[in-house]
Amino acid sequence: MAHEVVLLDFWPSMFGMRVRVALAEKGIKYEYKEEDLRNKSPLLLKMNPIHKKIPVLIHNGKPVCESLVIVQYIDEVWKDKNPFLPSDPYHKARSRFWADFIEQKICGGHVAQVGGGGNHGLLLHKVGGCGSRGLLLHWVYDTARKIWATKGEEQEVAKKEFIETFKILEGELGEKPFFGGETFGFVDIALITFYSWFYTYETFGNFSIEAECPKIIAWAKRCMQKESVANSLPDQKKIYEFTVWMKKYFGMD
Amino acid sequence: MAHEVVLLDFWPSMFGMRVRVALAEKGIKYEYKEEDLRNKSPLLLKMNPIHKKIPVLIHNGKPVCESLVIVQYIDEVWKDKNPFLPSDPYHKARSRFWADFIEQKICGGHVAQVGGGGNHGLLLHKVGGCGSRGLLLHWVYDTARKIWATKGEEQEVAKKEFIETFKILEGELGEKPFFGGETFGFVDIALITFYSWFYTYETFGNFSIEAECPKIIAWAKRCMQKESVANSLPDQKKIYEFTVWMKKYFGMD
Repeated sequence: MAHEVVLLDFWPSMFGMRVRVALAEKGIKYEYKEEDLRNKSPLLLKMNPIHKKIPVLIHNGKPVCESLVIVQYIDEVWKDKNPFLPSDPYHKARSRFWADFIEQKICGGHVAQVGGGGNHGLLLHKVGGCGSRGLLLHWVYDTARKIWATKGEEQEVAKKEFIETFKILEGELGEKPFFGGETFGFVDIALITFYSWFYTYETFGNFSIEAECPKIIAWAKRCMQKESVANSLPDQKKIYEFTVWMKKYFGMD
Repeated sequence: MAHEVVLLDFWPSMFGMRVRVALAEKGIKYEYKEEDLRNKSPLLLKMNPIHKKIPVLIHNGKPVCESLVIVQYIDEVWKDKNPFLPSDPYHKARSRFWADFIEQKICGGHVAQVGGGGNHGLLLHKVGGCGSRGLLLHWVYDTARKIWATKGEEQEVAKKEFIETFKILEGELGEKPFFGGETFGFVDIALITFYSWFYTYETFGNFSIEAECPKIIAWAKRCMQKESVANSLPDQKKIYEFTVWMKKYFGMD
């Protein structure tokens, strides 16, 4: 069966990168379509009318949305090469648990979607629901976002949470080369894309992730030796330049 | 193979109810252990050291955490009876997308876990991270929670969001008897447990869900005709009495 695969994406998105890594791991050829999130394409609005967010994978005309749902979909359709999830239900559940942990703790889940009453700290998120400017921001949330987007106490709290979270992840990694064990898998894909933002976090946050979590850095470097990862993640300095531009654009300095 | 199955749960939890429904659908015998969330058992803290939350399914001594992860686990281990997820990867992805939508829009994702800087509206959540009182609250989040736990503008916004969300879900349900199509499935399990809270939302919010979303009520009644659902959900009035007690206990009036 011929596969027509299109990816709607935005280059600095760690969620989009997950799909790029997954497609590369499976050796799938696809058409990459960059979205301007300030002016979303009719195709994006049609393919993801509920969330209107990238990434969207369009496979033979049918859309699949939400990065972790897409990664599991890719694993199930192209199941013969480099499986991401183990076949054993218990280990599969464990992988899903840790991917969900990353969603909750680093991405801050889906705060941006919820809206709600006048919280200063959620201002950026709330903007996300209203205007075209905010549309650019709604994919960069919470703990990780706060490290580069806030200052003072809020930033310090975010840094502390970020480090705590990565220390817990180090505990889960243990002495294994990958979260998936001997091979690169679902949790590795869910987490590695944040690595492209590490220089940004470190520079704005004025701290060293390696000093706090050396095993995470060793794991990330191991992942980066894989072509599928190295070719899917933008250069850390480019992400940094992007955030500098974004802070200026949104008057966040 | 003999299955030793234990469920750590708290009776008014819609997340715990999901697991109860899933176990009932599969006809699995299990030991139910009620947790006092103000004084969590050593077993809960040992089995879910990361989140310290119910529900936890302990299967032959091994813990599985997070309700939707547990429901998928149950589906995969006991795969021969009443499958929850379709076998086709596209339809499976669609089911996961909608279950995730419910997590994001009704539960408000994982806001409570993230913490962050001084948001008045997140006060209840923030308490959740600190003291024993808060521990009781950390599973009742956002949009749905705000309908009974807040007043004035915040409550009105939550009601509006709640109705909008259920209207979108009505659109997805369409003319099908269940979200899973002809049979009760993953999305039905993810959503139906909120039905036990409907009387609470309606009473505190002073609105009629049936008037706004008649198809959702028809669907819910269809689900309630299933013994697996009817026997797993507490009476709506009992949930209401529980929230009245909780509001008094937390001085929320």
